[in-house]
Order: sequence, then C-alpha cells, then structure tokens
Amino acid sequence: MNKTNPGNFLENHYVGQTITHATPRTITEGDVALYTALYGSRFAVQSADSFAMDIGFEAAPIDDLLVFHMVFGKTVPDTSLNAVANLGYADCKFIRPVYPGDTVSSTSKIIGLKENSNGRTGVVYVRSTGRNQNGEIVLEYVRWVMVRKKDKSLPAPEEDIPNLPKRVEPSDFASSIPEIRIENYNNDLAGSQHRWGDYEEGEKIDHVDAMTLEEAEHQMATRLYQNTAKVHFNHLLGLTNRFGRRLIYGGHVISLARALSYNGLANGFHLAAINGGRHVNPCFAGDTVYAWSEIIEKAEIPGREDVGALRVRTVATKNRSCENFPDKTDDGYPNCVILDLDYWLMMPR
Amino acid sequence: MNKTNPGNFLENHYVGQTITHATPRTITEGDVALYTALYGSRFAVQSADSFAMDIGFEAAPIDDLLVFHMVFGKTVPDTSLNAVANLGYADCKFIRPVYPGDTVSSTSKIIGLKENSNGRTGVVYVRSTGRNQNGEIVLEYVRWVMVRKKDKSLPAPEEDIPNLPKRVEPSDFASSIPEIRIENYNNDLAGSQHRWGDYEEGEKIDHVDAMTLEEAEHQMATRLYQNTAKVHFNHLLGLTNRFGRRLIYGGHVISLARALSYNGLANGFHLAAINGGRHVNPCFAGDTVYAWSEIIEKAEIPGREDVGALRVRTVATKNRSCENFPDKTDDGYPNCVILDLDYWLMMPR
Amino acid sequence: MNKTNPGNFLENHYVGQTITHATPRTITEGDVALYTALYGSRFAVQSADSFAMDIGFEAAPIDDLLVFHMVFGKTVPDTSLNAVANLGYADCKFIRPVYPGDTVSSTSKIIGLKENSNGRTGVVYVRSTGRNQNGEIVLEYVRWVMVRKKDKSLPAPEEDIPNLPKRVEPSDFASSIPEIRIENYNNDLAGSQHRWGDYEEGEKIDHVDAMTLEEAEHQMATRLYQNTAKVHFNHLLGLTNRFGRRLIYGGHVISLARALSYNGLANGFHLAAINGGRHVNPCFAGDTVYAWSEIIEKAEIPGREDVGALRVRTVATKNRSCENFPDKTDDGYPNCVILDLDYWLMMPR
Repeated sequence: MNKTNPGNFLENHYVGQTITHATPRTITEGDVALYTALYGSRFAVQSADSFAMDIGFEAAPIDDLLVFHMVFGKTVPDTSLNAVANLGYADCKFIRPVYPGDTVSSTSKIIGLKENSNGRTGVVYVRSTGRNQNGEIVLEYVRWVMVRKKDKSLPAPEEDIPNLPKRVEPSDFASSIPEIRIENYNNDLAGSQHRWGDYEEGEKIDHVDAMTLEEAEHQMATRLYQNTAKVHFNHLLGLTNRFGRRLIYGGHVISLARALSYNGLANGFHLAAINGGRHVNPCFAGDTVYAWSEIIEKAEIPGREDVGALRVRTVATKNRSCENFPDKTDDGYPNCVILDLDYWLMMPR
Repeated sequence: MNKTNPGNFLENHYVGQTITHATPRTITEGDVALYTALYGSRFAVQSADSFAMDIGFEAAPIDDLLVFHMVFGKTVPDTSLNAVANLGYADCKFIRPVYPGDTVSSTSKIIGLKENSNGRTGVVYVRSTGRNQNGEIVLEYVRWVMVRKKDKSLPAPEEDIPNLPKRVEPSDFASSIPEIRIENYNNDLAGSQHRWGDYEEGEKIDHVDAMTLEEAEHQMATRLYQNTAKVHFNHLLGLTNRFGRRLIYGGHVISLARALSYNGLANGFHLAAINGGRHVNPCFAGDTVYAWSEIIEKAEIPGREDVGALRVRTVATKNRSCENFPDKTDDGYPNCVILDLDYWLMMPR
Repeated sequence: MNKTNPGNFLENHYVGQTITHATPRTITEGDVALYTALYGSRFAVQSADSFAMDIGFEAAPIDDLLVFHMVFGKTVPDTSLNAVANLGYADCKFIRPVYPGDTVSSTSKIIGLKENSNGRTGVVYVRSTGRNQNGEIVLEYVRWVMVRKKDKSLPAPEEDIPNLPKRVEPSDFASSIPEIRIENYNNDLAGSQHRWGDYEEGEKIDHVDAMTLEEAEHQMATRLYQNTAKVHFNHLLGLTNRFGRRLIYGGHVISLARALSYNGLANGFHLAAINGGRHVNPCFAGDTVYAWSEIIEKAEIPGREDVGALRVRTVATKNRSCENFPDKTDDGYPNCVILDLDYWLMMPR
C-alpha cells in the first residue's frame, strides 16, 4: 500500500468536495523575523508592537501576506501537487488580524471544474479558508489551477465554472481591522506624510528599489510556508523543465513587490483584499526584481472614518527598472513583467 | 599564553574524563522558525501548539533533531575540533521534551579510547548528555570520532573499547513523551491515515521529494547550532581538502532526510532513539538529497497503549532518486548513498 | 507629486537639524535566532537566559551589535541613501541592555557639515540615538558620511567640524550593564578561563577561525536590519560600480569579526563602547573573513569591582589568515584588511 501522497488529479475532484489540509501552523515571532530578513518589509504596524498598540492593535499583527503564504502552503499537497500552472486568484479577503502565537489551518472547497479540450488537463477552482485556533476565519481566497488528468479514458467532469467577482467590495473588509486611533498614527514613524487623501486615481509610482533573488532565499521562504511544490526545490528536476532550472514560488514575488512598494505607499499598512493576480512570467534565482504601482480606484469604507481604501495595481518586473512603468500592451505582457496584482490597501485618512 | 582553543588531541583524553561544554543555549521560537525554513518539516506536533496541546503536550515541542544538533554543537570545540572523521553514533535517547524557552547545555564523558596502528590517529568514544535549565536530562548519545594525535612520540593509551548496544530497548523510551490523548489525534491534520498498525516489517517507502542544498543554508544551520567545525565554513580551507570544497555538517543531512520522510511517515511524530548512524559519503552544496526508509522492526512500548514504536532505517542519497531504493551491497555503499540511519519512531496506535 | 523617498543630499542638511527615522522595530527572539544563524556567535550571556539571569540580567540581552544594526538601519533612508562612502564612527556607547520584546527607534541630529573642495560632495556628521519603547536611550553614536550634493550651484554650507573624542571614557559606560554576581559567573560555561586580569596591553590574539560569506546571508542580514542601502541588494546596479558587484554592509563584517573573536575573548561579554572604526576595504560574497585582536588598553571601570574594561582593536581580513597579524603600515592598509575597529569590552574580573 502506497503511503506517500500522490497528490490529486483532475478526476479526483468534484464540485462541492471539501478538504481538510494537513499541518496546522503556529505563526511566531520567529516567522516574523525570517519574513523581514527575506523581504525587508518596513511597514511600521507590522514591525513594532508599540506603533501597532498605539493605534489600536493588540500587538504588531502578522504581515497579511505571511498569513496568506501559510494558509496557501497547506493547500499545495492536496490541490496543486500535480498542477501544470497556477492560473489566477480572486476574491481574496484578509478578514481578521493574526498575532504571534496564533495557529492557522486550512480547508478548501472545490467550487468549479472544467476539462480542457486536449483531454489531458483541466482547471480546478478552489476556495480556500484559513482559520485560527478558535475556528475564526482569518483569510479566504479562490484560486484556479491547471491540473493533470491521470486516466485520460475517464469521461470529462460536468463543466461548472464559478462566477467570480472582479473586485472585492469595500464593505467586505470594513471590519477586517480594529478601529484605528488616528490621532496616534505618526507619519514620521510610519515613514511617509502621504495619507489616503493624497493619492489620486491614475497616479503611478515607481518604487525605485530592487532586490536580486538567491536560491537559498526563495527555498527558505517556501519551506517556511511548508509549501511542498517540487519545482521550487529540486535542481535536477529543474534541469528537465523548459527553463532548465528551479522556479521561484510566485508568492515570493508578491511579498517582495509588496516590500518594495513601501517606498511610495508606506502608509498602506493593511492589505485588505486581493481582487486578482497573475504570475505573468516565471522568476529565477539571479533575477533582480523591481516594482511599480498604479492607483486604480479610491473608495471610502462603509462605517469607517479612520481609514480609506486604495485599489492598487502593483506590477513587478525582472531585470528591468520600472521608471518607464513596463506594462501589458495589445501584444500582451513584455517578458520583463512577472507579476500583475490588483488589491485593496487600507490607509489612514 | 595562548587564549584560543586549540581543541583536544588523542593524548588529551583519558577514559573517565568528564567535560563541561561551553555556551548553554536557550532554544526559542526563533530557532524553530529557522529550522522549518531550513528543512521544511511538516510534522503537526512540532508545527502547531494547538495540535500538540490537544494530544497532551504543554505546547509544540522542539523538534528532536534540533535538540540533538544544539547539544551536539556544544561538544565540537572539545571533542572533534581535530577530528579526521565522525565514525558513528549509538545509544542515542531522546528522554524528555524540550519547549521554547528551555535552555540546554552539554557535558561529555570519555568512555573509550583506541590508538590506530599508524600511531598518528586514534578513536575516542564519547557519551554526551544534554540537560535543560533544571538539570534534567533531555538527551543522551554516544559517538566515536577519529582524532589526531599531536605528539606521536607519546605512548599509546591503553585500549578500552566500550560495549555499545546495537539497538536501544523500547523500555528505555517508554516515558520520553507524555501520554497521548489518542482520541484527539487527528489524522487529517497530521497528514496521513496510516498509523502504527498499518506498517509492516520489511516495508520500504520511497519518500519521493527532494531538496537541493545551498552553501548559505547549511552554513546558517550549522552556525545556528553553534557548531564550530571549520570544514563547514571556510571555502579556502575547503580548497585544500581532498574534495576541494566545504563539507556539509552530517546532521544537516539527517534533518533533511527526516523532513523528507514526512511523505510516508507523517504520523511518526517523535524520534525516540537513534540506534546507530553513519555518514557514508560526504555531501556538498549543489547536491540534491532524496531519501527512502525501511521498517525493520515493530515494537510495542511497555506500559503504553497509546503509541507504538517503528524501528526505521532511513537512507539518504545525493543526486539520485530513491525509487529503486539504492542500498549497501557486498561491495559496500554506492557513491550516491550519504546517510544510513537506524532509529525508533513513535507513532499513534 | 513624488511619493518615494529621494534621500537627502548635502544641501538638505544643516547643523542642528533633527530627524525622526521611520519604522520602530520590536526586536524578538526571532531576530536573535537569525543573528546566531548568520554569525555563529557563542557568548554565553547572549545565548542563554539561565546564564544571563544567574549573573544579574533579566534575561539574555540582545547582542549589542544587533541593537546597533537595528538603530543604524533606520537612519539609512534619511542620512546615507545618497552616500558615496561611510567614513567613520566615533563616540558609540551601548547605554542600556535591550531584551527580546523591546522596541527600538532612532533619531538623529546633524552635528557637523563640510563641503569637499570638488563642490560635488561633502561630509555630514550625524549623532544618532536609539531609544526603547519607554523613551530610554539604549545606544548613541556618531558617524560621518560622504554625501552627494545635488545642486552644485548652491553655495557651500558653513564648515563646522565637530570635536569628536578619540576614546570613550570608561566612566561613560560604568552603568551600562547591571551589577554582575561574579560568584555565579561560570568560566566553563562561558568557554574560557581567561578573565580581565589575564590580558595584557600589547597582547595580540589570532582568532584562528574563518567564515566564507554568501550573497543570501548578507542580504538576509541587511534586510533584517531594515537597512535599505541599494548597493547591498541589486546585482545589476553592482555591475555598474567599480567593483562590478554587490557590496556587503560593513556592519555585517563587524558582527562576523566579533563572533570570530569569541575564540580568544570568550569572556568579553559586553561591547560597552566603540571608540572608532573604519571599513578599510570592501567585502564581497565569496570572501573568507578572518580576524585578529590587540589589547591596546586596560582600564578599571569607576565604581565597578565586578568587571573591568579591555580596549581592543579588532582587525578583520579577507582571504588571508591572521596568523601574522596583517596590519596598517606606513604605506597604509594592505588590500586584505577590511575592518579596523577600536572598542571597549567588558570582562569579569
């Protein structure tokens, strides 16, 4: 009897199926330190207990994306071990702060299925939920993944494509953080004088800074999240793929882009939701990552006078500065673009 | 007067000698996070306070091998700074859980000596003991090391080779963990439906996954353990050895093999004892490590209805998949085998 | 309106100017673990709560240099983003222990200015202060930096060069650590029998050990400190500088030299002050770092019978052993010397 996990194939899934993922994870100050060492993020709320407590948090909360990676990592053995590609994200909501000492665990529900016309692969739509040790939901998101079919002779599953929102409603994250004691929010300590009111729709920001990636760094990050996708860790397997090398976990690029975005969005202290995201091109050790952002929408948050929301599109590039804002054209994305992420950022008013 | 530590040579040791090793070490959640980042281990008991407490632990205990490396690291400056080779381990017992915040320290006793016929080296047998801040023993093991003799004109020490057990008795580790509330042990969260009763003697498991090692990773690991052996850290010194490069600490491979073994042994939540172990071939940065295991014995543990013991032999290889279980033959080990470890694993019944 | 930080140029500074730096930082056990993993420091006071508490500390204090890097890192975006070179340090005092959970923040005051004769650069003298969450000063130091002038048509600022002490007075750090219960100080656990009384002025110590540096290591260190200087992180930018590569943060070398100095100065448990320091040559990934020290002065500390001070000069080299104590000559420093640091070390009497 095989005791190792073969992962799931297209035919192992059905709409409505629920999965309890293995290995709940206590997130600690140790994880926070590693996260800082890996990305260099400088947002004051996540860096300093004193700053966070002054404005109304219990302590410095865990970085939203670190929570995301932890919840996501647990889903990999069950939902993407036999994935060909991670196609997209939608409807991702950061619902409740996570603090050091909290334990997160993940469950998933299959919400859509579609076999591709080649009969060898299909798309699985998964809604995953992260909960803390009290069973409270801290995070929810949908992703869709292209997965291999093992037995091609099986009939195709009934096609069922979920209707996913293009954009999370601001009312959905109105309660995702405590009320901010805005009079205690110190711009100097946060690192910018620019608050919600100072940004305009259409405004573009080149985040200027850049980071060159190393194998040891992305491997340590991805193991920290207990993400087991083989493509990130096995050099010999890498030699056999079309790039000839290990691929960097897409979430590593998201976290790096977010850290780079501090320089221009320093008061965007909470990532409230991800509307959508695509890993446009792969990223490898040795690549140097840059980022730029565009403010695509400003929104008040129902019932909140303390904070407002900026809908931001952050684009990350490799080996090319963002001073000219490299972007998608009618011919698609240029090779230098690796990430296109659309999200809501909370900022003090 | 020389104030630096020259290490001990063969002639500095005598049977019965006791050594207090320097630098007690508080093991923290920070060390745990780094350990996860370095190996990607996913055992639920060590990953989640909630899971550990549900079944009877005070909190998520420190990974057994992390405790081993910490205790081992302290012995290096006194027992193996002038070592030619680390020859073997025996009678290693993990006696008491260690929790974040506990401080471990090490002492050693020389239990055997033998000069080699070349008159330039000899073998030192050392029993080392790790204690917590309350003086309670948490770990004990014997290792034997080939050490240089400095003054070849000195007479050989009287030969005294200790009688070491080939196998730790299950009764010796019956009390090494708290009683498990087996009704609370959740297979889904642990990641496998296979408990003690589902394994059979002779069963072999290819752990499938693999990890490519980087210089920064093994250096960070070995420094974390405050292990000072020069061969791991100095590239220039490496150029002068017969491999032309830095050697990876053998314990790094043990921890990696243990982490890989999760895929097939996910419920083996406590390493109760190491019966013996050999680093068969050296391992270097750039190598990709795979592992397979064989169940060589099943044992009930006296007085315990909650857990049983599996005696497991885990073999790690470099740059070669374990699907065909590469192993020792009459001609010895193939070059791809780097570790052969014989240990007792506790598993819920 | 530009929302990214352009950094300050020579003309943005004036004597008497004060700056509140961004991002207060809670230093945790996670940071301590990473620090150990990055440098392998083995001083007992910083490694073990039990050892530290036995002699009078509340817990194992944060390594003095880790505090320094955290305070220093925050000053970079405001004082050295447009720096050509970091010219020197003086009058650095470690005033109060920092424990895990404390939050440090930084402020700076410009205490001197001088335009260089080329009219394109100048020197800015900065006194920076680190405080804990209670507003207590934990650290103070002066550094001077060569900074670019942006608008060369502006008149030169009035030259004002501060009078800096060549040496911190021992009375200045008499109260920087608690009274030591000297009867509880255990030489075996600390790793050396040599206390203050055993060192002599003029004594030189080769610290023997060495470490080869990796890109991933220094990048993780420098990000951990939230130090944003671009030269450390961007490989492509590195290709355009005169070395053709990323430069390693000078503080990384200081910490490494301090960790290496354990082998010979194991009882030097507290770095009380830095009298001066120079990064003599740059250091790169792949370099192997060695260190040696000279005792240049012994001093009693006013009012303290428990500890004495050693004024130590530690010299770090790259790719060359320190057995012959490579040093400055009439022709200047040889290329192998990378650091010359003059500091006060506290040692039990």
